[in-house]
Amino acid sequence: MSLIVRTIVKKRDGGELTEGEIHDFVRGVTEGSVGDEQAAALLMAVCCRGMTTAETAALTFAMMRSGETWDLSAHGFVGDKHSTGGVGDKATLVLAPLVAACGVKAGMMSGRGLGHTGGTLDKLEAIPGFVTAQPRERFDELLETVGCALIGQTDHIAPADRRLYALRDVTGTVESIPLITASILSKKLATGAHATVFDVKTGNGAFMERPEDAERLGAALVETTRATGRLASGYITAMDRPIGVAVGNANEVAEAIAALRGEGPPDLRENVLLLGTDLLLAAGVETTPKGARTRLNAALSDGRALDVFARLVAAQGGDPGVCDDPTRLPQPAQTIPCPAPSAGVVTAVATRELGLLAIEIGCGRSRKEDVVDPASGFRILRKPGDRVAAGEPLVLVERGPSVTIPEGFLGRLSRCFTVEEGDARAEPLPFVVRKLG
Amino acid sequence: MSLIVRTIVKKRDGGELTEGEIHDFVRGVTEGSVGDEQAAALLMAVCCRGMTTAETAALTFAMMRSGETWDLSAHGFVGDKHSTGGVGDKATLVLAPLVAACGVKAGMMSGRGLGHTGGTLDKLEAIPGFVTAQPRERFDELLETVGCALIGQTDHIAPADRRLYALRDVTGTVESIPLITASILSKKLATGAHATVFDVKTGNGAFMERPEDAERLGAALVETTRATGRLASGYITAMDRPIGVAVGNANEVAEAIAALRGEGPPDLRENVLLLGTDLLLAAGVETTPKGARTRLNAALSDGRALDVFARLVAAQGGDPGVCDDPTRLPQPAQTIPCPAPSAGVVTAVATRELGLLAIEIGCGRSRKEDVVDPASGFRILRKPGDRVAAGEPLVLVERGPSVTIPEGFLGRLSRCFTVEEGDARAEPLPFVVRKLG
Repeated sequence: MSLIVRTIVKKRDGGELTEGEIHDFVRGVTEGSVGDEQAAALLMAVCCRGMTTAETAALTFAMMRSGETWDLSAHGFVGDKHSTGGVGDKATLVLAPLVAACGVKAGMMSGRGLGHTGGTLDKLEAIPGFVTAQPRERFDELLETVGCALIGQTDHIAPADRRLYALRDVTGTVESIPLITASILSKKLATGAHATVFDVKTGNGAFMERPEDAERLGAALVETTRATGRLASGYITAMDRPIGVAVGNANEVAEAIAALRGEGPPDLRENVLLLGTDLLLAAGVETTPKGARTRLNAALSDGRALDVFARLVAAQGGDPGVCDDPTRLPQPAQTIPCPAPSAGVVTAVATRELGLLAIEIGCGRSRKEDVVDPASGFRILRKPGDRVAAGEPLVLVERGPSVTIPEGFLGRLSRCFTVEEGDARAEPLPFVVRKLG
Repeated sequence: MSLIVRTIVKKRDGGELTEGEIHDFVRGVTEGSVGDEQAAALLMAVCCRGMTTAETAALTFAMMRSGETWDLSAHGFVGDKHSTGGVGDKATLVLAPLVAACGVKAGMMSGRGLGHTGGTLDKLEAIPGFVTAQPRERFDELLETVGCALIGQTDHIAPADRRLYALRDVTGTVESIPLITASILSKKLATGAHATVFDVKTGNGAFMERPEDAERLGAALVETTRATGRLASGYITAMDRPIGVAVGNANEVAEAIAALRGEGPPDLRENVLLLGTDLLLAAGVETTPKGARTRLNAALSDGRALDVFARLVAAQGGDPGVCDDPTRLPQPAQTIPCPAPSAGVVTAVATRELGLLAIEIGCGRSRKEDVVDPASGFRILRKPGDRVAAGEPLVLVERGPSVTIPEGFLGRLSRCFTVEEGDARAEPLPFVVRKLG
């Protein structure tokens, strides 16, 4: 029996793999000596049998070492953030310049939209001229001169994760806490941040719909990061409704700019303050949550956070004029209200379906080759707990110039909102479901 | 999510697959629309989560339908036998002509040696001129004119099994009761026999070493065959020592001929009588086990069984003269005794290792391209419970003309026998561990 088959059989039978076995597997995946069918079998065995924290850490490290690893120590402390993704989640756009304005460097490597969730890169690229593909040297320069950097993944970071992720996608092995953890962390750790704050979403718009699954993933992310000797903290937060009002790309940038100005929706601000507090504490620039909040709020009020964002946009090739005049962002060709069919209380929002509908009007891709229209999106006017009269808009649909609204779209959109008569009570999740770690 | 990924995820999460889902999977495997990595993931999920009898029957049927299915109804009742494989297991060679001599047609499609176990086809091909590759039409003719047929698998039978088996071999998914069951039965059922008697081996020379695993496999084989509307029965029998004296190819044929003459080792005779009784009862030519045994014994004593074998050999192109003069079979170039290093009682025989050593001297293949020397083999002179004096032979090694005995071979061979001093007691398995069904 070959070594890889021995490893597969060991995991199949519930055994704990050694660091060496995991390392050999990942090297075989990277070099191509392990076949796709063998990798798929081991991935499925991991889905069924799980992995210990030690195994997950070994897998993370091995995947990280399959490519470049960046040493950021020349910059002093560098913080990072990871969200498991949601609808309307533009927190990274606010958080990175905000903590940089508070003296904490933030180097973040983001992804594109996945499934029903938006992608930070697509949002940033709604800014005319903004370039997310930046080489390593430029990442360093941005951290040095602006204090933060928002870039896209490069092929040199964790190549084993790319091959494994492509396999997981077609083999039903995506939903596995250890595999998700290693996929996220192999990339995070490779880019060298010293502390990561995790925002694990839960609810009907999150990948981890059930809070108990989100807790398991959150615990794995924090424990595994700590097992590699870096700082980690985080929160499980509500994704049973979109964050903020804007869902899309250009409109989310505009909302992020409003938040950086100290305005914008309160849930977005709360999300950013939570995560920012953890990064300020991890960096040691503040010693109490209260002190950290005060410093963050000040940077939002006095314009320093927005100023850092403007410098970041300019440094990454974008038009910093959008910060003062958001109409310089791509604008919709038409705004169409989506009316409530009856009066009552909104008791639930089908958040995942809302995200999928946003993709249909060009906010994201259902296939890799789809083109995003940055001007398309939704403005969510009602959330769980809000009253609505019959015919009042639940959502405004912003149609980008390149988009045709599909037949029956408004009907499907309005059915994302459960409107109940009389004294019905909504029971949305509290925004912070739990603190991790 | 594609249909196949949905099916994989359902099994991964412990769900029961529908007949349609299983059918689509097997069709996709056969047609190539399901990727190797997807098939491997589903096979591993089955290893981890299991399958119900209904699922196993659906998998068996779908794999069977991936190729030709033979309708043998023109022949009346046709019986079949399946052994899970062992060392020295030549029962098929005796059983098929024996039951045919008793009026029960026997159509059996056999395989080559697998791992440490011998293969019926390799044994038959030790008879000069014998051709195991016979087309469907010839199979019918043999059943019609001789009453039995012993042929090799064709590419037209259960092609899905070939692709799945090749995958299982490299992905650590061989050891799964439902997958083993479907692999065996898809081929058995395709060749159209109306009843199958199963000989599930257990002990240190069997694939199912532990009796409880053999029971699970035996129950699955019997239940699944019955779920497809055919008759099934069988036994769990001992494979903690070889069957009979001869291990090899030509020497096993000679031993089978002796058994057909009513001579030969008692354990081989008992094995054949057990299985033959079940087939005679299933066919309805006898109504009691006692009656069946009597009829079988008579056919061995009066030469009818051997006569059928001689006609079968001739009809399949072989030299029927071997039945009267077994020295017409390939003969070893040399016979080398393997002495006991000390006196005592043989308390155990490492049967699997014995089988692997037989392969080293040309009795089977460790790689597909290896050549078998039909004259090579062992004569097992001592079994558990037997006394031996120091220097007395435990085994005779029969060296085929093309074979060189490897360095240190006799030492390794003698170490397969545990010889204990004084009053040590051997505790071999009873020959019939359990009746199935």
